[in-house]
Amino acid sequence: MTSLVGGLLGELADVGRTRKGGYDRRAWTGVDVECRQWFVQCADALDLDVETDRNGNLWAWWQPSLPRTALVLGSHLDSVPQGGAYDGPLGIASAFAAIGALRRDGFTPGRPVAVAAFADAEGARFGAACVGSRLLTGALRREEALELRDDDGTTLAEALRRAGVEPEHVGRDEERLQRIGEFLELHIEQGHLPTRAGTGALGLAAAGAAVGVSDRIWPHGRWRVDLTGQQNHAGTTPMGARRDPLVRLADIVLAVREGAIAAEALATVGRVTVSPGAVNAVAGSATLWIDARAAHEPTVRRVLAHVRRVTGAELLEESWTAETAFDQGLTASLSEILGAVPVLPSGAGHDAGVLSLAGIPAAMILVRNPTGVSHAPDEHAEDDDCERGVDALVTAIRHRAA
Amino acid sequence: MTSLVGGLLGELADVGRTRKGGYDRRAWTGVDVECRQWFVQCADALDLDVETDRNGNLWAWWQPSLPRTALVLGSHLDSVPQGGAYDGPLGIASAFAAIGALRRDGFTPGRPVAVAAFADAEGARFGAACVGSRLLTGALRREEALELRDDDGTTLAEALRRAGVEPEHVGRDEERLQRIGEFLELHIEQGHLPTRAGTGALGLAAAGAAVGVSDRIWPHGRWRVDLTGQQNHAGTTPMGARRDPLVRLADIVLAVREGAIAAEALATVGRVTVSPGAVNAVAGSATLWIDARAAHEPTVRRVLAHVRRVTGAELLEESWTAETAFDQGLTASLSEILGAVPVLPSGAGHDAGVLSLAGIPAAMILVRNPTGVSHAPDEHAEDDDCERGVDALVTAIRHRAA
Repeated sequence: MTSLVGGLLGELADVGRTRKGGYDRRAWTGVDVECRQWFVQCADALDLDVETDRNGNLWAWWQPSLPRTALVLGSHLDSVPQGGAYDGPLGIASAFAAIGALRRDGFTPGRPVAVAAFADAEGARFGAACVGSRLLTGALRREEALELRDDDGTTLAEALRRAGVEPEHVGRDEERLQRIGEFLELHIEQGHLPTRAGTGALGLAAAGAAVGVSDRIWPHGRWRVDLTGQQNHAGTTPMGARRDPLVRLADIVLAVREGAIAAEALATVGRVTVSPGAVNAVAGSATLWIDARAAHEPTVRRVLAHVRRVTGAELLEESWTAETAFDQGLTASLSEILGAVPVLPSGAGHDAGVLSLAGIPAAMILVRNPTGVSHAPDEHAEDDDCERGVDALVTAIRHRAA
Repeated sequence: MTSLVGGLLGELADVGRTRKGGYDRRAWTGVDVECRQWFVQCADALDLDVETDRNGNLWAWWQPSLPRTALVLGSHLDSVPQGGAYDGPLGIASAFAAIGALRRDGFTPGRPVAVAAFADAEGARFGAACVGSRLLTGALRREEALELRDDDGTTLAEALRRAGVEPEHVGRDEERLQRIGEFLELHIEQGHLPTRAGTGALGLAAAGAAVGVSDRIWPHGRWRVDLTGQQNHAGTTPMGARRDPLVRLADIVLAVREGAIAAEALATVGRVTVSPGAVNAVAGSATLWIDARAAHEPTVRRVLAHVRRVTGAELLEESWTAETAFDQGLTASLSEILGAVPVLPSGAGHDAGVLSLAGIPAAMILVRNPTGVSHAPDEHAEDDDCERGVDALVTAIRHRAA
């Protein structure tokens, strides 16, 4: 990558790279902290004022003292395990690149412009997504957040303290919310979802567009299933006398897939734990997580009903987010000033959705992903398309922060 | 537990106890080393000569200088994760208790008697079972053993070095093998397998016997299946476009169970890994291990053939042990001197089987397990039955080491 945004992303190329390829930048790890230092360097190079808010989110301000609410650009730095290079950092690198380009052009904003890096958006470490933005808006209660634990038993409170964020001070930040006039998150496209109106093409590649605008996030949720059996010796326990939770887990994995296909939804089991996990022991317990999403809530509910009916499993709802519509005026304005680019939904949750639910006008710009692959090492966007994303942010800032 | 053997086991009651109950005493961990220190204390209290052999196995000698081959008693100290209190340590505590009882009675052996604790018998940490005894007999090559890795990437060579065992010196130990006249492993019964002749009762509980003798170990093996798919975003990847290795894993888990039931064998998937293991990502790869056993090899092979046929899975044989018959004369003699106790097979592998395959006369004494549950926190033997096990060892020593 030789472009401006490519150069910025290139500075992160080795940060958290895993042996299996891709990146592991789970929230508040050393690697995540390194990404945060990169954020500070990018901001310093542009002479922006950097601050960390009460919830561990990073902010870089351009003209913060102007007496209007801010146009905030941004995304997140953390990743899923073995995630791609673009999901999150592209939005932040593009925002810095756009500000750099405007500066060189001599543009001066008429309202404050900020770049935000929301903390712990993926939720891959503590199991809850968009923690930084949801604490900021109050959608996630402080007490609930601080007790979240990672696989090693470390609480979010401990992880925050180690990173220099005081757990006592996290929570809804009224003053900061008042300063955000509107929020614009640029993000790599994930999957190929149907574009609105026009051709109804699946994704930006089929629509022949380098960038698009997202108008809403599909309703989505996570459910946990805890299975208990009887741990026993694999070499001596008759098949008829077993209560093997891994066999029940297998039934449920297949039912999730069947249910999703039947309902025309998306449903996934991507994480399981099996205890004790010994080759020569019938497992004693197992847990699996179901991720289910669709364009409409009843479709999601049909998947869950199928799983319950077929397997008798008890599904514990760990999170649920109703359909989130982005600000209609902002979305329409963006699509227009960017040259009637395609409008399409997002299947993934985002910090933009969290802010939108809190009443802040928000919208998203998506950059074409040729394969749609995301949350994986193969995630990719062409360099030219990333530059078109920066151009879109430049245009948006010129219009919205004139 | 207030009996002699109960008292000895009681000294280990807190060593490696896990939060979920049961014990985690995987080989060469700090907890395992603590168990090894207990072995030394037990031997010291009986004035036995303690030594560690080239392969990390512990030995405690009674009259080592007598000019005959030794009667060796013993078992292992390591456990599976969340294992029980008896599997392994019972055989060692019982051997010490038997020697203590004979000493108090003024008995002097006419040949050397030893207690051995074979290292790393469960194979729960490095994935290979009976490492200490198989290195001793040469059944496991040094080069192969030293490169085994645990889940953290630590090699067996590193773990041995840290515990003070020189990796350079492991391997077949001819001189020591020459000193072992016969080997007797006392062990808690695991499962309820059919007793030979007589009633054909399932297990010692049904046969109404506190102890029994095992005449053979079922053929058994481990197979690994590596599954590769396409890691992707759970919220955006159409069901039809997925290559989800966890769905294939589920198919295989169910096929293993079906195959075992159809063939009247025992087959288990107790360990799986899923990568990256994120709730919101379709997995990119998964691995599972199959443990399969039966009274006869063709029965085991039928299970594997079923799994291959139904799922198309490629099964990598990680280990295979043919049926191991214990020494017929020794088994018959034991059954007789112990009062015609039931004779039954063992579904589990043991160090006694390894020594037997190397041509050393070996046999096993089993102590009744009321539920059959093993490799689990609920594993249990009644105190009185454990004392009957000690009595059996006392009788065996009186007869075999007169």
